[in-house]
Amino acid sequence: MSLSDADVAAAVSQPDPCTKDFVFQQTMLRIKDPKASLDFYTRVMGMRLLTKYDFPSMTFTLYFLGYEKEADIPSDPVERTKWVFMRRACLELTHNWGTENDPNFSHHNFNSEPKGFGHIGVAVPDVYKACERFDNLGIPFVKKPDGGKMKGIAFIQDPDGYWIEILNGEGIADICHK
Amino acid sequence: MSLSDADVAAAVSQPDPCTKDFVFQQTMLRIKDPKASLDFYTRVMGMRLLTKYDFPSMTFTLYFLGYEKEADIPSDPVERTKWVFMRRACLELTHNWGTENDPNFSHHNFNSEPKGFGHIGVAVPDVYKACERFDNLGIPFVKKPDGGKMKGIAFIQDPDGYWIEILNGEGIADICHK
Repeated sequence: MSLSDADVAAAVSQPDPCTKDFVFQQTMLRIKDPKASLDFYTRVMGMRLLTKYDFPSMTFTLYFLGYEKEADIPSDPVERTKWVFMRRACLELTHNWGTENDPNFSHHNFNSEPKGFGHIGVAVPDVYKACERFDNLGIPFVKKPDGGKMKGIAFIQDPDGYWIEILNGEGIADICHK
Repeated sequence: MSLSDADVAAAVSQPDPCTKDFVFQQTMLRIKDPKASLDFYTRVMGMRLLTKYDFPSMTFTLYFLGYEKEADIPSDPVERTKWVFMRRACLELTHNWGTENDPNFSHHNFNSEPKGFGHIGVAVPDVYKACERFDNLGIPFVKKPDGGKMKGIAFIQDPDGYWIEILNGEGIADICHK
């Protein structure tokens, strides 16, 4: 059942003042092959690589990406780290070394069982135009903007098969308020 | 293996101009019980419920939360939807009706096999102070700030068992640049 408005109101609290500077900074996805993922998230999706960290003793690398202006990214590495970790909406890609050469290795995209995480979403000025470009770039679609019941929303897949919703505020308003 | 700097540079593209207004708007997690999750993400984590949508014919509800100022949230529902879907870093919680009453239902938090999605992360002004409060509120920890190798980073769990990293830019800079 959906919650009644009264149940929603009872479940929701006003933020505690001590949380006022909390920032939803990152979503972490494990990736198989950083070459493929860096190419995808920069060339196709338009993010920038903000910083990366190698952890040789634990044999993994973390890549942080996001929609940021180049001029805003501090060049000093320490200042850059402090800045990145206070920014909203960074994508953290974790590469455990070696997975890229294992033909049997793949990640679970979680839209089949067992379920939990669903997808990340990118808002774009024009869903149809963005999707035409993704199509021309050979990006696989789970749903094209005109497929299914919800017109004007699409889902593409990244190199690991994770779903990325392509959406627009006006389009969602049309779906939800008509 | 980690990528060489040359391989990273070769994999990364400058953003295509047509992606300049793209926004990393959402991360979607499926939840079992919206009462528990709304309570957790507002009372404990300090987010606000920005909007919700019931889809009776498909028997699910979507809740959108984020760190936003109350005064910035449009009161008109259509304007609010347009605004939410252009904001960075919203958390979308999907509740498929009925899971809250199924004692055998749980979500996979993906930090055991099969792996893929890892966690979301919240930057806070003081990790130790934030974690002392989480502890007082009875929130389960995967890792306390002084546990393990990486001091000053913690992982807590939300009501579905999803991991939330609690971090701070200065603290990460200390770990990565010392």
